[in-house]
Amino acid sequence: MPRPVIAVLNGPNLNLLGERQPEVYGHDTLADVERRCRERADALGFDVDARQSNHEGELVTWAQELRHGAGFVVNAGAYTHTSVALRDALVLATGPLVEVHVSNVHAREPFRHHSHLSDIAAAVIVGCGVQGYEFAVEVVAARSRA
Amino acid sequence: MPRPVIAVLNGPNLNLLGERQPEVYGHDTLADVERRCRERADALGFDVDARQSNHEGELVTWAQELRHGAGFVVNAGAYTHTSVALRDALVLATGPLVEVHVSNVHAREPFRHHSHLSDIAAAVIVGCGVQGYEFAVEVVAARSRA
Amino acid sequence: MPRPVIAVLNGPNLNLLGERQPEVYGHDTLADVERRCRERADALGFDVDARQSNHEGELVTWAQELRHGAGFVVNAGAYTHTSVALRDALVLATGPLVEVHVSNVHAREPFRHHSHLSDIAAAVIVGCGVQGYEFAVEVVAARSRA
Amino acid sequence: MPRPVIAVLNGPNLNLLGERQPEVYGHDTLADVERRCRERADALGFDVDARQSNHEGELVTWAQELRHGAGFVVNAGAYTHTSVALRDALVLATGPLVEVHVSNVHAREPFRHHSHLSDIAAAVIVGCGVQGYEFAVEVVAARSRA
Amino acid sequence: MPRPVIAVLNGPNLNLLGERQPEVYGHDTLADVERRCRERADALGFDVDARQSNHEGELVTWAQELRHGAGFVVNAGAYTHTSVALRDALVLATGPLVEVHVSNVHAREPFRHHSHLSDIAAAVIVGCGVQGYEFAVEVVAARSRA
Amino acid sequence: MPRPVIAVLNGPNLNLLGERQPEVYGHDTLADVERRCRERADALGFDVDARQSNHEGELVTWAQELRHGAGFVVNAGAYTHTSVALRDALVLATGPLVEVHVSNVHAREPFRHHSHLSDIAAAVIVGCGVQGYEFAVEVVAARSRA
Amino acid sequence: MPRPVIAVLNGPNLNLLGERQPEVYGHDTLADVERRCRERADALGFDVDARQSNHEGELVTWAQELRHGAGFVVNAGAYTHTSVALRDALVLATGPLVEVHVSNVHAREPFRHHSHLSDIAAAVIVGCGVQGYEFAVEVVAARSRA
Amino acid sequence: MPRPVIAVLNGPNLNLLGERQPEVYGHDTLADVERRCRERADALGFDVDARQSNHEGELVTWAQELRHGAGFVVNAGAYTHTSVALRDALVLATGPLVEVHVSNVHAREPFRHHSHLSDIAAAVIVGCGVQGYEFAVEVVAARSRA
Amino acid sequence: MPRPVIAVLNGPNLNLLGERQPEVYGHDTLADVERRCRERADALGFDVDARQSNHEGELVTWAQELRHGAGFVVNAGAYTHTSVALRDALVLATGPLVEVHVSNVHAREPFRHHSHLSDIAAAVIVGCGVQGYEFAVEVVAARSRA
Amino acid sequence: MPRPVIAVLNGPNLNLLGERQPEVYGHDTLADVERRCRERADALGFDVDARQSNHEGELVTWAQELRHGAGFVVNAGAYTHTSVALRDALVLATGPLVEVHVSNVHAREPFRHHSHLSDIAAAVIVGCGVQGYEFAVEVVAARSRA
Amino acid sequence: MPRPVIAVLNGPNLNLLGERQPEVYGHDTLADVERRCRERADALGFDVDARQSNHEGELVTWAQELRHGAGFVVNAGAYTHTSVALRDALVLATGPLVEVHVSNVHAREPFRHHSHLSDIAAAVIVGCGVQGYEFAVEVVAARSRA
Amino acid sequence: MPRPVIAVLNGPNLNLLGERQPEVYGHDTLADVERRCRERADALGFDVDARQSNHEGELVTWAQELRHGAGFVVNAGAYTHTSVALRDALVLATGPLVEVHVSNVHAREPFRHHSHLSDIAAAVIVGCGVQGYEFAVEVVAARSRA
Repeated sequence: MPRPVIAVLNGPNLNLLGERQPEVYGHDTLADVERRCRERADALGFDVDARQSNHEGELVTWAQELRHGAGFVVNAGAYTHTSVALRDALVLATGPLVEVHVSNVHAREPFRHHSHLSDIAAAVIVGCGVQGYEFAVEVVAARSRA
Repeated sequence: MPRPVIAVLNGPNLNLLGERQPEVYGHDTLADVERRCRERADALGFDVDARQSNHEGELVTWAQELRHGAGFVVNAGAYTHTSVALRDALVLATGPLVEVHVSNVHAREPFRHHSHLSDIAAAVIVGCGVQGYEFAVEVVAARSRA
Repeated sequence: MPRPVIAVLNGPNLNLLGERQPEVYGHDTLADVERRCRERADALGFDVDARQSNHEGELVTWAQELRHGAGFVVNAGAYTHTSVALRDALVLATGPLVEVHVSNVHAREPFRHHSHLSDIAAAVIVGCGVQGYEFAVEVVAARSRA
Repeated sequence: MPRPVIAVLNGPNLNLLGERQPEVYGHDTLADVERRCRERADALGFDVDARQSNHEGELVTWAQELRHGAGFVVNAGAYTHTSVALRDALVLATGPLVEVHVSNVHAREPFRHHSHLSDIAAAVIVGCGVQGYEFAVEVVAARSRA
Repeated sequence: MPRPVIAVLNGPNLNLLGERQPEVYGHDTLADVERRCRERADALGFDVDARQSNHEGELVTWAQELRHGAGFVVNAGAYTHTSVALRDALVLATGPLVEVHVSNVHAREPFRHHSHLSDIAAAVIVGCGVQGYEFAVEVVAARSRA
Repeated sequence: MPRPVIAVLNGPNLNLLGERQPEVYGHDTLADVERRCRERADALGFDVDARQSNHEGELVTWAQELRHGAGFVVNAGAYTHTSVALRDALVLATGPLVEVHVSNVHAREPFRHHSHLSDIAAAVIVGCGVQGYEFAVEVVAARSRA
Repeated sequence: MPRPVIAVLNGPNLNLLGERQPEVYGHDTLADVERRCRERADALGFDVDARQSNHEGELVTWAQELRHGAGFVVNAGAYTHTSVALRDALVLATGPLVEVHVSNVHAREPFRHHSHLSDIAAAVIVGCGVQGYEFAVEVVAARSRA
Repeated sequence: MPRPVIAVLNGPNLNLLGERQPEVYGHDTLADVERRCRERADALGFDVDARQSNHEGELVTWAQELRHGAGFVVNAGAYTHTSVALRDALVLATGPLVEVHVSNVHAREPFRHHSHLSDIAAAVIVGCGVQGYEFAVEVVAARSRA
Repeated sequence: MPRPVIAVLNGPNLNLLGERQPEVYGHDTLADVERRCRERADALGFDVDARQSNHEGELVTWAQELRHGAGFVVNAGAYTHTSVALRDALVLATGPLVEVHVSNVHAREPFRHHSHLSDIAAAVIVGCGVQGYEFAVEVVAARSRA
Repeated sequence: MPRPVIAVLNGPNLNLLGERQPEVYGHDTLADVERRCRERADALGFDVDARQSNHEGELVTWAQELRHGAGFVVNAGAYTHTSVALRDALVLATGPLVEVHVSNVHAREPFRHHSHLSDIAAAVIVGCGVQGYEFAVEVVAARSRA
Repeated sequence: MPRPVIAVLNGPNLNLLGERQPEVYGHDTLADVERRCRERADALGFDVDARQSNHEGELVTWAQELRHGAGFVVNAGAYTHTSVALRDALVLATGPLVEVHVSNVHAREPFRHHSHLSDIAAAVIVGCGVQGYEFAVEVVAARSRA
Repeated sequence: MPRPVIAVLNGPNLNLLGERQPEVYGHDTLADVERRCRERADALGFDVDARQSNHEGELVTWAQELRHGAGFVVNAGAYTHTSVALRDALVLATGPLVEVHVSNVHAREPFRHHSHLSDIAAAVIVGCGVQGYEFAVEVVAARSRA
């Protein structure tokens, strides 16, 4: 019997994680992030479906496809601040949504202080580095079970 | 001799029409909408070219391709509120543009109250359900002839 | 047995329809509009009670009087943007409210972009000329039956 | 020798008090309100002149006519938020003005949070139901004597 | 052969001119104002049709009735700041519109600083007391001839 | 069997009532206010627990302690405009909250026009002097019984 | 015995009056304006001291020099909207200030809708063409005598 | 040799955790929260100094006292949104600050969307329930070592 | 005969003066500040009552207690920007109030640019370091005598 | 040895350059623009990699790919005003960025006055027609060498 | 036969170019800038009239004097952001206006992001250093010929 | 060996100090102010170069000329609120800048609450009357030495 699947979506420019400003974002690459998510999820009895795209439309389509899974861990990058379309797709999910940002967006430019996702999320984890993804997997797993 | 063509463009998440919140959006699917548009257009002597995409760029490209037709019926979904690019493509159309929304966007969140398309549209039809598409086809047909 | 009645209310300056800026509003007079509403309603099994006033208070009183009918088609003209009193009267209606504007208010001055009625309306039809009233009658009839 | 007169003015839609949303506004009708005002005033040695209108202009005219009386108890309904004309008429009164609202306007839509009357009033009584009118009569009587 | 007619419209509370705050508005009554307008117009070869109302709707209706005359001198009182309906009626006039205020509205409350009429007026005369009406008659007469 | 208790909380600077600007606030002291509340409550079958503090934290603690009583009469003074903490404590109350201000805050500085309490209150009584507390006791008593 | 002097100050770009956009500003030159002011003032028993400058500082200095005269007629041109310094100089005048604009600034760009002078002026005359200066001279003369 | 100490500060109304709206905040009490923090910290080689106050000033004083410790886990409750003083005290800390909220503040009233602490925090954890405190302890421990 | 007393109030975090960011605030401690105030006051014939608190409520109470003295020198720290309660207490003072800030608040975050005290102060001294307190004592002494 | 490469990126609708509103944008096509960039670059010792897309995500991906080149000439079209994602990709570039607009965006709609790119650009060239691209190539070449 | 003249106007503080913050503005002096403009213009068949002033009024007067020339290259320095008078003078020019800024104003303080000149300019060149003046001369020359 | 020079610049209308509203500004003239500055500076080992102008451009030029001196004491009068040019000149100074206002600008009109100089000043001294200049001289002297 298949295990429930947690979707881990990463948005634009997160494919460069680990290379881009490592003093801010750390040295972990996106592959590391996805591996850590899988390990944490596995320990909790979940599978992970991890994807990254620079295209808003592709993220929308993936959010639609995965909307019946256990829940979402989403770092939408810049689309956090501009995409109503992604919000509209994620609000269809039957499981919980946890929003993650590697750096502390509240300490950056004002246009990064508003998120189109936060008010439809169950939880928001900001500035915890790549460890934030692991916390998010834990929250999705716990809420998904409840 | 070919009949003039009305373009019917649907934006992100409208591929889920009929499944998503049917108490709000009704039980008609996107296929139903497109069929109703075709029937109404046919009675008025027009063909319909109906397309849907979750990609802003694809909608832009389609709007460019179809800009010499009889006119546009557009429900841009979330891109209504965020896409200047789609506006810039639709403003090139030689025929009239009618903006449609299935639900009443004015009764929803404040960020849905502003449209980048309304001031370049000929008409805006909101909250009439899928019947709004048929009204829009009528308006495009009438204006296109005038 | 009497047929259900759709109220068609027109606000200030709409008594001059057909004369005032016909290149914008068309050549149909208010009498034409009301006749077209009656014909469309008759075909759907409804009567129409059509009234026009330049007085906000009179429109309020009429909205109260007609509040137990099948529904409302309202073009409140300038009071759309300034009258909370009319909103408070129309919100008491037991049937649906459809807001109509002959021209596309979104392409006009900014103070015409806000409506005190839209968020309590079932539907909003803008820029379809006098045909918009007929669409509105159809929507009221359909919703009233549902 | 005639007794001093307290004017009790009610604005648009208050003629439906008792019928409209009784779970919010209670079951007292406007006639009940006016009777309670008269009884409370009578006990304090005052007469009451109670009037209601849906017309802003009529309220303005009445405010002018009654401006030399003992004072005003005013529930201007929706005109509270939109009428500078009524404010300009009431500011001419020689006696005190007490503004009353049956429901708690501060817990309703944002456009009800601003009043054109409050800063020229002696007192503002909000959310006390129809009892608020009696409190207002007491305040006008006390201030009028002082 | 009848002489061209200048409409002089006064809005709410201006019927009390001369009595209300004479240290601000002077001792001239509305009858004095209208007489001075007539005398100044007569010397320039014009008749005057002078009316006052506390009702927005009545002012709208009068503006419609008089729209084919020589032009308008309008002191809309408080409706200056709140009436889009009056603006919509006055914009239909074939002659020029001159807006008048007896006191200097710019030195009063902020909500008196915006006028719905100024941008459609030919001229605005503020703070000149009742003499401002005479200046306005001169401007309407001169522009009407040109 | 103990009688239900109405909490009467006064915020910063209200300990100086009667001494501070008596031409605005009157000559009644805080002791007078509390005595009048007790008398009015006693007649209605309630006891009063009256407290005053200049400390936001102390008011928060008291609101918590008294949250299971019959209800609250609160004049939070300056904390009305700045304390979310007090709001969060008062929203826990099982009985109704009536907000009181001795003077008319709407006629004072703009920063006094917003209250963090009004939208969670049952009623708001402003500008009635110390008599406002008695009205508030009546409202709490009536609502508490209902 | 010298006659009282009315100062007529014109600000930047008004030296080009008559040449610049004559369809808007008319064909009268600044010399014509100053002559008309002198004639009107002479008939009323006043002299005129007329000056023009493109320098804010020079206008400030002149306003200081002339502050003990009969009053000011000022068309500050663009400095109307930007100069607090000129306001501070003109507020020192012992006679009345009348602000004049040849065209209707309210029908132009939004940044021309605010004036740093209007709230310290006795009167504001806008859109009356060069005749507005004559009206202004009359008002200064009348107020100066009162 | 003493272990480094993580300060866990809770602000107003958090003393009622577990009792207040358990469907929102869960059934864990503040004692449970503090115990879980201690256990998690202990496993990581840290002690915890946990305190709660309804007094802004007391929280300021504690933040000063504890500023040389390993870092701070702070749920300032309502003071998050209103206290610059607490911000000024916490910014003195030599260790990292992690801000925690039990519920998702972004899905609540607009005045809860701004935090005076977020831009000086290392991380912000919102909506993870009491588990958020444990995540925060982990982050402080990790950053404190780095 | 006792000498008049100047109150020197310092708000939250000023107890750490000299230790906290000495490159910004200098090396003088609060004790140094208070000693310098006493010496300067003594030379001018005044005593000083100097107090510091992190509690808004305590500062309010002290402002009340000391309100009949010669005047106030107040550095309210963060409460400058958030405390209406302290403003309400200080406005009761019979002597002058001088507001002091050690650093230049205008060169810091925007939320430090507004002060609830400045418009009720006689003078405001910003960025002069601890010497600003001595200037303030001089101003209070001079104004208190006048 | 390969020459350094200047990336020339064009955004949505710029594929229609030369056809779309030639009175505004001129008759040069995108191919002409790219050829002129190549010629100018070639003269300066640089190659050009020119690409156009209607897809935000594709532009993001290209910006990433080309980020180690000599620099960027970017006309992002409508994405200038809406794309944080493109900004985030371009900020990673090691060479300078020059933003180009063919028409003068400052003379168009207000929503075109803000650019997400300008503050991370080295230079911004607006309204110079297609010649602006050549200027931009010069600036990138010069800065890249420096 | 005289050659057409391009006016090059520089505003306040640009007389210090080359000395002031050379790391930002480069080492070219104003004399260098003017010489480069002359050389570039000469090659294109134009003369240059280059002037600099710290006085707004002098720039206004010069703009008037030179308004019949081939066009303007203007770096108005700080007056870019504050001078409506200069705008009003430059709008009279018969030739094109190109606005230049040496540094990238969009990357500086917010008050430098708005220009009173940009919407009346043909082109705006920002951040290209002193080379920007040469580009501007080219644009004026090309447009002037067209 | 020459002594270092403190520049004391006064802006528009300060030449009337002592005559203009002496109840607000006191009876000291500008000559008195400059003499007091000289005496205080002399005692501290500095010379003073004191100048006043109503011309923004002249103040800019003087700020440039004096920028290598010991520092600036500046009361820019109305230019405080409107002059970016003066700011740009003063920011070039090598010594400290102290901003002075004789009256308390924070208690005056809102447009006087913002200063273009404060955030580049070392200190701001407001409402201390002409004594404020002496304090400012002290601060410049002290900082200049440091």
